[in-house]
Amino acid sequence: MFYRTEDDHGLKHNPFNAVVVPRPIGWITSQDAGGAVNLAPYSFFNGVAYDPPQVMYSSTGASDRVDGLKDSLTNIRETGEFAVNIVTWDLREAMNQSAASAPHGVDEYELAGLTKAACEVIACPRVAESPVTFECKLVDIVDLMTNDETLPNRVVFGHVVAIHIADEVIVDGLVDITKMAPISRLGYRDYGRVGDVFSMTRPNWPPQ
Amino acid sequence: MFYRTEDDHGLKHNPFNAVVVPRPIGWITSQDAGGAVNLAPYSFFNGVAYDPPQVMYSSTGASDRVDGLKDSLTNIRETGEFAVNIVTWDLREAMNQSAASAPHGVDEYELAGLTKAACEVIACPRVAESPVTFECKLVDIVDLMTNDETLPNRVVFGHVVAIHIADEVIVDGLVDITKMAPISRLGYRDYGRVGDVFSMTRPNWPPQ
Repeated sequence: MFYRTEDDHGLKHNPFNAVVVPRPIGWITSQDAGGAVNLAPYSFFNGVAYDPPQVMYSSTGASDRVDGLKDSLTNIRETGEFAVNIVTWDLREAMNQSAASAPHGVDEYELAGLTKAACEVIACPRVAESPVTFECKLVDIVDLMTNDETLPNRVVFGHVVAIHIADEVIVDGLVDITKMAPISRLGYRDYGRVGDVFSMTRPNWPPQ
Repeated sequence: MFYRTEDDHGLKHNPFNAVVVPRPIGWITSQDAGGAVNLAPYSFFNGVAYDPPQVMYSSTGASDRVDGLKDSLTNIRETGEFAVNIVTWDLREAMNQSAASAPHGVDEYELAGLTKAACEVIACPRVAESPVTFECKLVDIVDLMTNDETLPNRVVFGHVVAIHIADEVIVDGLVDITKMAPISRLGYRDYGRVGDVFSMTRPNWPPQ
C-alpha cells in the first residue's frame, strides 16, 4: 500500500509507529524545582552523538500535556536536567504503570513499586532497579512542525554527563545484551524482547 | 559500574551504544543535485512526531564525512529530501554492504544487489526490497554539542510526506511485526531480531 500522510491511510489504526521499529524506551525521570518527581516512558528516544555522548527524546502533541498536568518537559525546563533509565523485561509492568496519566503530585515510583537511587552529578533520582541510567544535562529543546499549535511537537536533547551500568550485565568488559534484557516498543499495544542476536562486520573498501 | 563521561570508562569498548538498545535502523537514500545516489544505514534514527509524522537521524562525527566523501547529509542539504527504508532480516547483508565507505560515484544499490524503485512525491529512489519506506522532506538540521569542530554532530529532521508499506506485511489492517521482521542495532558489531512480542494496555487513572 501507499499513502500520502496528508490523506487518510485507510487502515484500522495509524500504522506509523508500527513501522518505525523496534524502538528503544527511554524511561525518563525529572523533577520540578520543588523536588516533585515525574517518571514516564518515551519510545521516540535514541542516542544522537558519541563525543560527547548525547541523547534525544520527543515530547509529542499527544503526550505533551494532558489536562494541565505537569510533565517531563516542564520539569526539564525548570531544572535543566533529567535521568534516562532503560526498561528491561523485569521492569515491563512497572514501566507500564508509570505511563498512567497520574495527576501532578502522584509519585510514579511509589505507584509502580520502584526505588529511587541518588544520581551522582544531577539532583534527579534514578530508578534503582534499572540496569542502566544516563545522567543528562539539558542541551536544547527544538520545536518541530505541528498541525495544531495547542499540541506542539518538541525534541529534547541531553548531554549524558554520567552513566550507571549494573555490574551484573557486564561480562569480560562488554555489556551482555541477554543479561541486560531490554525491551522495545513496537506498534499498537505491542512490545518485544531482543531475540536472535547476530554479528556483522562492516566491510572495508574496496570490497574483497 | 559508574563513570563520568568526561573520564575514561575503563572497559574494553565504549559501552554507550550497547546500552541505548535496541535501536531501529533507518536505511537512508539520498541523491545529489546531479542524481548520484547514496544509501547508508543509521541507527541513531527514530520517529519524533505523529501530526504531522516526522523522523530524525543523526549524522555523528565519526560518520559525517570520511576523507572528503560525499554523504547523506550533503545530499539532503542539496535537494531537501530523502527516503528512509526499514531494514529487515532478509536485507541484513545488503544493509551491511551499503555501510562500506565507498567513494562518491559508487552506487550502493549496485554494490549491495538492490533494486531502485521510484518514490511518488520525492525524486529520490527507494529500496524496492524493503517492506517500508518513508518519503521525507527536510525540515531542519540541528547542530549538537561537539568536542571537535572538525567532526560535527548533527541531527536531521524530516517530514514524512508519504509512506510505502508492502501489502504482504499487513494482516487485517494491522502491520504484522513477524512478517515485517525488522532488525535492530545493538552494541559493538551486534544486531538483533524482534523476539517474544507481548502486549500491554496503558492503565487508566485512577488505578482500578
